[in-house]
Amino acid sequence: MTKSRIEPGGTIGILGGGQLGRMLAMAAAKFGYRCHIFCPDERSPAFHVADRVTVAEYTNEEALLAFARSVDVATYEFENIPAETAKLVASETYLRPGVRALEVTQDRLHEKDFLNKSGVHTAPYKAFQTAEEFEAAFAVIGRPAVAKTRRFGYDGKGQYMVKSRRDAEAVLAVTKGAPAILEGFVKFDREISVIVARSPSGDVAAFPVSENIHTNHILDTTTIPADISDTIEAKAKVLATRAANALEYVGVMAVEMFVNDGSGDIVVNEIAPRVHNSGHWTIEGAATSQFEQHIRAICDLPLGETNALGKIVMKNLLGKDILGAEKYLEDPKAHYHHYGKQDPREGRKMGHVTWVNTEE
Amino acid sequence: MTKSRIEPGGTIGILGGGQLGRMLAMAAAKFGYRCHIFCPDERSPAFHVADRVTVAEYTNEEALLAFARSVDVATYEFENIPAETAKLVASETYLRPGVRALEVTQDRLHEKDFLNKSGVHTAPYKAFQTAEEFEAAFAVIGRPAVAKTRRFGYDGKGQYMVKSRRDAEAVLAVTKGAPAILEGFVKFDREISVIVARSPSGDVAAFPVSENIHTNHILDTTTIPADISDTIEAKAKVLATRAANALEYVGVMAVEMFVNDGSGDIVVNEIAPRVHNSGHWTIEGAATSQFEQHIRAICDLPLGETNALGKIVMKNLLGKDILGAEKYLEDPKAHYHHYGKQDPREGRKMGHVTWVNTEE
Repeated sequence: MTKSRIEPGGTIGILGGGQLGRMLAMAAAKFGYRCHIFCPDERSPAFHVADRVTVAEYTNEEALLAFARSVDVATYEFENIPAETAKLVASETYLRPGVRALEVTQDRLHEKDFLNKSGVHTAPYKAFQTAEEFEAAFAVIGRPAVAKTRRFGYDGKGQYMVKSRRDAEAVLAVTKGAPAILEGFVKFDREISVIVARSPSGDVAAFPVSENIHTNHILDTTTIPADISDTIEAKAKVLATRAANALEYVGVMAVEMFVNDGSGDIVVNEIAPRVHNSGHWTIEGAATSQFEQHIRAICDLPLGETNALGKIVMKNLLGKDILGAEKYLEDPKAHYHHYGKQDPREGRKMGHVTWVNTEE
Repeated sequence: MTKSRIEPGGTIGILGGGQLGRMLAMAAAKFGYRCHIFCPDERSPAFHVADRVTVAEYTNEEALLAFARSVDVATYEFENIPAETAKLVASETYLRPGVRALEVTQDRLHEKDFLNKSGVHTAPYKAFQTAEEFEAAFAVIGRPAVAKTRRFGYDGKGQYMVKSRRDAEAVLAVTKGAPAILEGFVKFDREISVIVARSPSGDVAAFPVSENIHTNHILDTTTIPADISDTIEAKAKVLATRAANALEYVGVMAVEMFVNDGSGDIVVNEIAPRVHNSGHWTIEGAATSQFEQHIRAICDLPLGETNALGKIVMKNLLGKDILGAEKYLEDPKAHYHHYGKQDPREGRKMGHVTWVNTEE
């Protein structure tokens, strides 16, 4: 492991076989990289576009070592792979982003502590685990507040909206006694995210800020440009860059933020140490896609341009929404994406559509 | 085989595993299609992005039948697969484009006869096989002229520039006694090509005309728009559309033409019943890529928009040209493509670069 650059034509390992891994593999293929994808689920959509696959659990050390030895660099498409898995892979090959980014972002408490120490503000929060600790936290944070498990939450899972200190029982039914945090509710007008890339040598490039609308805790639409001032846009990019530098991050990460239009305040909600749903618009809507940018960063190639090519809207297709392809395929400004998943169960991310309005 | 449409998520078979099959598979994946690629060469670059591969000869009937039965529609990335292979596949699944397109375009004599009968003019030509027939053909065609084998020629292989009737011996050394044609040389100022798509229901969409520069019979650069008048641009598209309709073609095909600026004459040089090197610019330079358009056509989805997004230049990277990636990756207007081939031998198509100048 003397040279940091992985030349085009090399092999990239991806932990995780969902749509993010799939789109990473497709971007890698543009540069001639072969992808080896490791995922426990044999029906992983990323397998359809991979050169090589390993179907094994993330705890299978033998399979992980063989995987790590077969690639020139490894990355991951989701932040909930066990830290031990990451460490094992990192012992045999480059793991980008590294173990630290995973450890920090896998735990909401560590993440918030880290961000605030790095000068990136979050909503107020306090850790708890037991009913007594919850009540003590509630006394500090007040209401409204959200209880969240520290680990393994996504799309609103493991969360509970707290209204009273008497909610302790209901909260613990959701957290199941696992370490959790109580987070103060901040008043905000809009949710935004910044997709930022950082190279091994410390070059940083942020995409234009996107504005996100969630429905039932799942991303519904992303719009670019966000309806924010230039000052807020610049400030959001500074915060994302600060977080990436503080983590000595390598690759693409997403920073979700809340914006208060009146005060101009921005608080960071959370970091995803990976390509992100709110960056899918970049495939057709930016000079470089977030997937290509991640490949460039982890292979130590020059980062690409990040400018948007117009006004962009990205909409997720959940469950049976995927079946109505016709109207998108007939729309000259629409780019339809289908992730190749067979079962369109309710709420499942099956695909997305991006509209690029270059004339507006 | 009652429904003509293959819905997103279905399976597409591709005969041939080169860079064209690779880019077809990547386009198919955007719509959730799985690709099964059939190719005798186990090092095929298209295999890197395929869901399933079959390594077998094109004469292996058992393998071909199994392949055909495993897919919802089959297509091919090159025109020299045996007609018997195509017929066998077509007996079990949709083959698009069909057997007729292959039969016509595999043989230069049939192709030229067909085109001229369809109102699409070519240079003058005459068939020959023996030395006597060559001399008789030369007496009609005159000089300069080019002798070409009727079948299996590409990138200038199987061709001989004729200067005299006494060249008979040299010509037969190249044609090796195989059926051939002697083609008259037409005076032209530029080479252009039209990439045109036709759907099963007869919808036709042509991309903007591209201007091509060949070096040593291999495409070097493609530029859009071509330096031709609107009248010539329109006429070229009419000719390509006429050829596609006459063939009852389904899919994307390329029509190469010679243009005489002074007279405004266009003659068709040849047809490629497949996606084409002179259409690679469409990946980033057009609203829909030729690869996505081919997938749309063979799956009977609506054809996509074909407008160019600016002034475009595509350059092939041959042999060791592929190794200088850095300068392309640093150029904000350049899109670098590497086909994943390991051996950069001289003249081999290893990748390409497309520059999209949206501001000019």
